[in-house]
Amino acid sequence: MTKGILLVISAPSGGGKTTLASGLLEKVPPLSYSVSVTTRSPRAGEKEGVDYYYVTEEEFKKKKDAGELLEYAFVHGFWYGTPRDFIEEKLHAGEDVLLDIDVQGGSQIKKNSPEAVLVFIIPPSMEALEQRLRRRQKDDETTIQRRLKRAKQEMEESSNYDYLILNDKIDQALDRLYSIYGAEKLRMGRARSKILAVLNESKKELKNG
Amino acid sequence: MTKGILLVISAPSGGGKTTLASGLLEKVPPLSYSVSVTTRSPRAGEKEGVDYYYVTEEEFKKKKDAGELLEYAFVHGFWYGTPRDFIEEKLHAGEDVLLDIDVQGGSQIKKNSPEAVLVFIIPPSMEALEQRLRRRQKDDETTIQRRLKRAKQEMEESSNYDYLILNDKIDQALDRLYSIYGAEKLRMGRARSKILAVLNESKKELKNG
Repeated sequence: MTKGILLVISAPSGGGKTTLASGLLEKVPPLSYSVSVTTRSPRAGEKEGVDYYYVTEEEFKKKKDAGELLEYAFVHGFWYGTPRDFIEEKLHAGEDVLLDIDVQGGSQIKKNSPEAVLVFIIPPSMEALEQRLRRRQKDDETTIQRRLKRAKQEMEESSNYDYLILNDKIDQALDRLYSIYGAEKLRMGRARSKILAVLNESKKELKNG
Repeated sequence: MTKGILLVISAPSGGGKTTLASGLLEKVPPLSYSVSVTTRSPRAGEKEGVDYYYVTEEEFKKKKDAGELLEYAFVHGFWYGTPRDFIEEKLHAGEDVLLDIDVQGGSQIKKNSPEAVLVFIIPPSMEALEQRLRRRQKDDETTIQRRLKRAKQEMEESSNYDYLILNDKIDQALDRLYSIYGAEKLRMGRARSKILAVLNESKKELKNG
């Protein structure tokens, strides 16, 4: 059984990551979304087990110490982590998983699972990112400035990612993400069993004939 | 200047390689096609400088010995080779080149240019390939049997290729080839200059402000 693909997407806050993740999940129904664990509180509209698993600091530490997290990071005062079991079960069953995490987390994943596919999404400009952050009216001025600073830092740290998408128009960015996913399914390492199937089938035929 | 992509496609004879190459060139006008040199005679409808450059054995040997060929192979009694200058000029100018060669040639390319992108195209079954070879009515029985034998050999030798496309339906196979090309354009190594552009622009802004 060929293992599934672990597709990791990261983007600065306001970079359109969540929209792209939802868009890809809609286009590719068999793709599973890995729900992260966090110590931050749910925002308006967020649901337990859909957007995140919300836990206390103590619960998070317990999971971390028990090795239950594939990666974890401390971002803007809260912990975020990826449950290991869900992903490993899916991948071993040959199913693909989408992971939406920050650059620190992505780098940890790449270190432990070099075959993971990491996609970094950037805004067309820092001004565009700033506009998006202001338009969604979720953050005060200090938070916006902190997010912008962190965005630059993340862009500088993204060089170990495999692919880069410039999120100028969301539809185009989604098409690109879909192309990357499609192309990765065709990688020789993952698709080679098809050659063997064609060859074996013909050997069978030769035996029958 | 980021170097262009060298996209190599290979397929067993009758595998649909030529149709896919033409289809991709039509979808991506800036992509250039590398015309090979051969010692075989033009088939009906083939044009000098479009399908191949037709040369004598002596002329071929001269090019080969002068290092003018990026790769060459002896297939079914004839020499085939890829002119080096055309490709190197295009790639250095940041333009992408499509190369349609056999597996021996592809392996030579990969050895000398590991950043080349190699796509191998297989038929859905050996029977389908045999049917296609018979349907085009170009070959006698001995030639068909030789092509089938060689097809199996090429499939076995294709493991150093980067991607595999099963050519079941030609439109779908073309979409897949297009996805691979699109994804490769987004590889971090090739696209990273975009991040720097976004960051530098913002540094400029910081200076101005």
